[in-house]
Amino acid sequence: MDVAGKRVLVTGGAGLIGSAIVKRLIEMNADVTVIDAMLPQCGANRRNLLDIADRIRLIASDVRHPASVDGLVDGIDLVFNLAGQSSHLDSMTDPLTDLDINSRAQVVILEALRHANPRAKILFASTRQVYGRPMYLPVDEAHPVHPVDVNGINKLSGEWFHRLYHEVYGMRTCVLRLTNTYGPGMRIMDARQTFLGVWIRHLLGGEAFEVWGGAQLRDFNYVEDVADAFLAAALSDRADGRIFNLGSPEVVSLRQVGEMLVELNGSGRFEIREFPDERRRIDIGDCYCNFGAIGTTLGWRPQVLLRDGLQRTLDYYRRNMEHYT
Amino acid sequence: MDVAGKRVLVTGGAGLIGSAIVKRLIEMNADVTVIDAMLPQCGANRRNLLDIADRIRLIASDVRHPASVDGLVDGIDLVFNLAGQSSHLDSMTDPLTDLDINSRAQVVILEALRHANPRAKILFASTRQVYGRPMYLPVDEAHPVHPVDVNGINKLSGEWFHRLYHEVYGMRTCVLRLTNTYGPGMRIMDARQTFLGVWIRHLLGGEAFEVWGGAQLRDFNYVEDVADAFLAAALSDRADGRIFNLGSPEVVSLRQVGEMLVELNGSGRFEIREFPDERRRIDIGDCYCNFGAIGTTLGWRPQVLLRDGLQRTLDYYRRNMEHYT
Repeated sequence: MDVAGKRVLVTGGAGLIGSAIVKRLIEMNADVTVIDAMLPQCGANRRNLLDIADRIRLIASDVRHPASVDGLVDGIDLVFNLAGQSSHLDSMTDPLTDLDINSRAQVVILEALRHANPRAKILFASTRQVYGRPMYLPVDEAHPVHPVDVNGINKLSGEWFHRLYHEVYGMRTCVLRLTNTYGPGMRIMDARQTFLGVWIRHLLGGEAFEVWGGAQLRDFNYVEDVADAFLAAALSDRADGRIFNLGSPEVVSLRQVGEMLVELNGSGRFEIREFPDERRRIDIGDCYCNFGAIGTTLGWRPQVLLRDGLQRTLDYYRRNMEHYT
Repeated sequence: MDVAGKRVLVTGGAGLIGSAIVKRLIEMNADVTVIDAMLPQCGANRRNLLDIADRIRLIASDVRHPASVDGLVDGIDLVFNLAGQSSHLDSMTDPLTDLDINSRAQVVILEALRHANPRAKILFASTRQVYGRPMYLPVDEAHPVHPVDVNGINKLSGEWFHRLYHEVYGMRTCVLRLTNTYGPGMRIMDARQTFLGVWIRHLLGGEAFEVWGGAQLRDFNYVEDVADAFLAAALSDRADGRIFNLGSPEVVSLRQVGEMLVELNGSGRFEIREFPDERRRIDIGDCYCNFGAIGTTLGWRPQVLLRDGLQRTLDYYRRNMEHYT
C-alpha cells in the first residue's frame, strides 16, 4: 500500500507522535485530516503542525463524542488512532476522564468505522504500561498483562476493542505498545506526557531537575522512529490483527539519562529524589521491551541513538521553548 | 465477620443473584439497601423481592451516575456489586451501554467508596467469559484472559478496577468469576441473561425450544449456591484482593440439559439449530471451570445438583410465569 492520494485520519494529530506522523504523511502526498480536542492537559500543541497547517484539515473536536467522529470516517483509508490521555497520575485522580478517552472513545471510533467504513485500516497507540511490573526482561508481547494504574487498565481495554473488531468483524486493526517516546513536539510543561519533558524545560531554564529514584532501567524511542513504526504497520497487511512492542536496544537508568542531558547541554544539574508516595505506588520499576516481533515482521528497529535524539530535542526546545510553556 | 446489624448495599439487587443474596442477608438480620436501575433489558424484577419488600430499602436508581451512588456508600460495611449488563449479543450491538454499566459504573462505585468509605468490603460479580475460548479445561484462574465479545472486555475492565483499588489503596475487594447461573428469579423473556430462561419459558408454554449447537460442554450453578459463594467471600478476610472461579463438577452438554428439562417437565421437545451467524462468531465452545481455589480458601462448593436445581426452577416458573413475561 502506498499512501499517496489516500485519505488518512489522524486522531490526536496535534500531539507529539501524531504530528510527526502527519508530517510524514504530507511528505508522502497523503490527504490528511487531523482531529484533536486540544485538551489543555494532553499532548496537543498547534506549534507541532505549524509548518504544514495549510496542507491538512485540522478539526478541533473530541473523539469521545460519536457526533464528532461519525462524519469523519466515511471514505477514509487509514486511521492513525493516537488520541489519548497519557498521565498516569491524572488517571488515578480523575479515572473517569481517562476511561472516557482511552477506553470509551475507542469504541466510538471503532463503531463509526465498522458502520461506515469497515475496510479502513486502523492503528492504535497503546503502551507497555499494560504489562505492569515486569516478571522478566526484556518484556515481550507474551508477557502477562497486569496494569498497575487506571491508565493501564483503560489502554488495555482500548487494545482489546481493536483486537476484537479484527477477530469478530475482520477489520484491519493493529496495536503498537509504545515505550517512553520523546522528541521535538512533546509536552514540557509538566510530566503528564513524559518526565523527560519537564527535565528538559528545567535544564534549559537553568534550574535543577528532579530525578525520582534514578536506578530504574528504561528504554526510549525517538519520535521519528515511532512514526516509522506506525507507517510500517500501516503499509503492511502482515500487521493486521497484531500487537507489537516498540523498544530500544539502549537500556539506561534514569540517572544515566539525567547525566547525558546535562552533558549534552554543557551545563546543568539534577537532584535525585525519593518517589512521592502517590507516584511510588504505581511505579513499575525496571522496564524495557523486546521489539523482536515488529523487527521480524515489519523490519522496524529504532535508528536514532538516545544521545542524538536528546541532542535534537534540546536543540528544538532551545529555539521553541516559548511555544510550549 | 457477622452481617447481623451491618449495613449492606446490593447493586443490581432486584436481579437473579442480587435478590437471592438480599434474602439471605435479611435472614441474617443485616440492614440492606438495594440499588437497581430496573432496566428493561437487564435482570431486575420486582417479584424477586416481593417477600421482603418491607424489610429493605429499594432505590430505583442507576449506578452509572455518580450522584446516584455517592450518597449511598457512606457508613456501608459491605457492598455486593452485582449491577451488570449480561447479554453478549446486546454488548455487540450497543457496546457503549455495555461499557457504561460493566466498566465505567465500576469506577463510579469504587471512587465513591474510596472517598467516603475505604474500609468497606466490596464483591464484584464477573464472568468466566473473560477467558474466551478455553485453551485447556477445566479453566482455572491462571488461564490467560482473552475476551471474545465486548461484554467480556468490559467485565474484565470492571475486574481490573476492583483489583487495582485493592493493590493501590488496600481496599477490600474480591472478584468472583461466575459460570452459567440459573434458578428462580432469572430472566425468561429472552436469552439476555441465560439461554436456560428462554428454554424454560417455551417448555412451560408448551412450545419447542431451540438449542443452538448442542454439543458444547458447560457447567451450571444454582442461584443459591452462588449466593453462598458471595456470602463466604464477604465473611472472610482471606478473600480480600482475590479472584475466584465458581463452577460445578457436573459438566454436561447443552443437548443433555435440554433432555433433562424435558424429562423433568414430563413433556416437551426441543430442536437443535445451527448457530445464527452473529452468535456463532462470539461463541466460546466448551467451557467449564476449576473452582478449586475458592474451595480451598473459603470451603465453598456447589450443593445443588443440576437436576434438583432445574426441578426447583421449573416449579417456580410454573407458579410465577405471569410475573416474568
